[in-house]
Amino acid sequence: MNLTPTLAEVGERAVIDAIRAAAPSGVNGDDAAVIPATAPNSRTVAATDMLVEGRHFRLDWSSAQQVGFKAITQNFADIEAMGARPSSALLALAAPGDTPLHVIEGIAQGIAKRCKDYQAELVGGDVTRADQIILSVTAIGQLGGSRSPLSLDAARVGQKVVAHGHIGYSAAGLALLQRFGNYLPPGAEGLARLKQAHCAPSITAGRGLVARATGVTAMTDNSDGLIKDLSLIAERSSVAVDLDARALGPDALLKEAGELLGIDPWEWILTGGEDHTLLGTTHKDCPSGFRVIGEVTKKNGAGLVTVDGAAPAHHRGWESFA
Amino acid sequence: MNLTPTLAEVGERAVIDAIRAAAPSGVNGDDAAVIPATAPNSRTVAATDMLVEGRHFRLDWSSAQQVGFKAITQNFADIEAMGARPSSALLALAAPGDTPLHVIEGIAQGIAKRCKDYQAELVGGDVTRADQIILSVTAIGQLGGSRSPLSLDAARVGQKVVAHGHIGYSAAGLALLQRFGNYLPPGAEGLARLKQAHCAPSITAGRGLVARATGVTAMTDNSDGLIKDLSLIAERSSVAVDLDARALGPDALLKEAGELLGIDPWEWILTGGEDHTLLGTTHKDCPSGFRVIGEVTKKNGAGLVTVDGAAPAHHRGWESFA
Repeated sequence: MNLTPTLAEVGERAVIDAIRAAAPSGVNGDDAAVIPATAPNSRTVAATDMLVEGRHFRLDWSSAQQVGFKAITQNFADIEAMGARPSSALLALAAPGDTPLHVIEGIAQGIAKRCKDYQAELVGGDVTRADQIILSVTAIGQLGGSRSPLSLDAARVGQKVVAHGHIGYSAAGLALLQRFGNYLPPGAEGLARLKQAHCAPSITAGRGLVARATGVTAMTDNSDGLIKDLSLIAERSSVAVDLDARALGPDALLKEAGELLGIDPWEWILTGGEDHTLLGTTHKDCPSGFRVIGEVTKKNGAGLVTVDGAAPAHHRGWESFA
Repeated sequence: MNLTPTLAEVGERAVIDAIRAAAPSGVNGDDAAVIPATAPNSRTVAATDMLVEGRHFRLDWSSAQQVGFKAITQNFADIEAMGARPSSALLALAAPGDTPLHVIEGIAQGIAKRCKDYQAELVGGDVTRADQIILSVTAIGQLGGSRSPLSLDAARVGQKVVAHGHIGYSAAGLALLQRFGNYLPPGAEGLARLKQAHCAPSITAGRGLVARATGVTAMTDNSDGLIKDLSLIAERSSVAVDLDARALGPDALLKEAGELLGIDPWEWILTGGEDHTLLGTTHKDCPSGFRVIGEVTKKNGAGLVTVDGAAPAHHRGWESFA
């Protein structure tokens, strides 16, 4: 008996069956999925993000489950960043024919696990052959009520900048993996949490909804780097943002990783993306689960992001074709 | 001046700008797209399909515009096959860094052109680097009113099987490209229409909606092959299907291509997918734009598809990992 059959051996239907068994949904299986009906006047919100093997993940660093988990976290973060509730995901999956079926099963399990955190379902997809494993996830959510979605262009002078989730953890985890692979040096085992933050980032489900309900107006998620993502809000809103170094400064874990690697942890904080931390702006009280990390100003011209009034020490961000 | 800059040269933002310029939408550009509101009680329908360079298209056979056009046709066919109206598409695009920017612009132009036929828009997406060009399109549509969606499991004994669109044209076009590349032999120029059907398949927008409004109950599109796709309906509905050879038989164009290539055109008709022809079943009159190609029976056991009561001469279909 072949314990690890490949996709080419089992064929398309078995691959689809394995995915549907790992991430079952009553809606999946027809030409298209009919998304479960929601409250009247709710609007549909959709976003898509692709993960490419060797570029966004490595299967020697991440388990297949973590890859699926991360794909959902990053796609649902875009839905939450609109102030909407993620309800459904579609998975288009490309993979070489010699990929073991259990890798695809693992990815589907990770997707199902993370979907469950949101009471969401994998409702459809497509599988095909390609030279690399590529996951293209589309997230669909619902925006209830009459309040505006949380957009990039709705930051206003005088607002607080608020954040939910760690900042810089994913980049620190990546740096640890690049240096040590899967084996942290003796005594540094506590840093495994940073690797986890890179391989399977997780933020509490529903914080985007909370933010929209409590007065946040602009929001995005930290996907490409704190300075880069906040610059986009600042640009689109024609404002400037000044961040508070004390609120952002490295915690004990980031400091330990920085010392071990000889890297300034501020680089991870300011330029490291993929935390999928929610970043918003509000005139109201800081929403539950968020903390204040800065303010919306006009001091330095539109689009600029400063730290304690000065240009940030690090400011590049993720670039897809670099 | 560099007339054909590459994606790596211009960078991610310029790639996104080029796509948005070619396929503009007021909804695009935030973390996620808010799909324009529709009639009350309308349900959202979503499907995704991936096109891989070298597997689903070749840029020496198809123009970039045709690739984008085809990506929309095949994704919107899945929405139409539910009896819904396609309104929005998302494009996740992976490409090597040395891909000329004009290729991506061409793909976006083809997407915009085909979206226009449906009064739909490209509302969001993602771009990333990979070893091959891969388009992952998600189609979103709306299902108005209270009638059921057109599902695979709703064929009933005694119904007509109806079709809208050519059957076998795409496979014939592919066979011509495989033999002759882009240059048809002298005197065979009329067969260019078959190549067009392969590179940029097009069916009239809105026929799925018409079908649902006029009594069709089950529907799919001819994506993997006529026998394979109808077998899925037959299986899910626990019925059999008998096709009418006279209604399906090759027309003059398919016969000409078959003679030129020494291939039985029935192979293209029965097993060639990618026409994205709508295939439905109905007790009512044949809907406008459709023709009758067979009937739903129970004679030969559930799941079976026959032609004039006999096993089809050809019956394999598209297999993603073959």
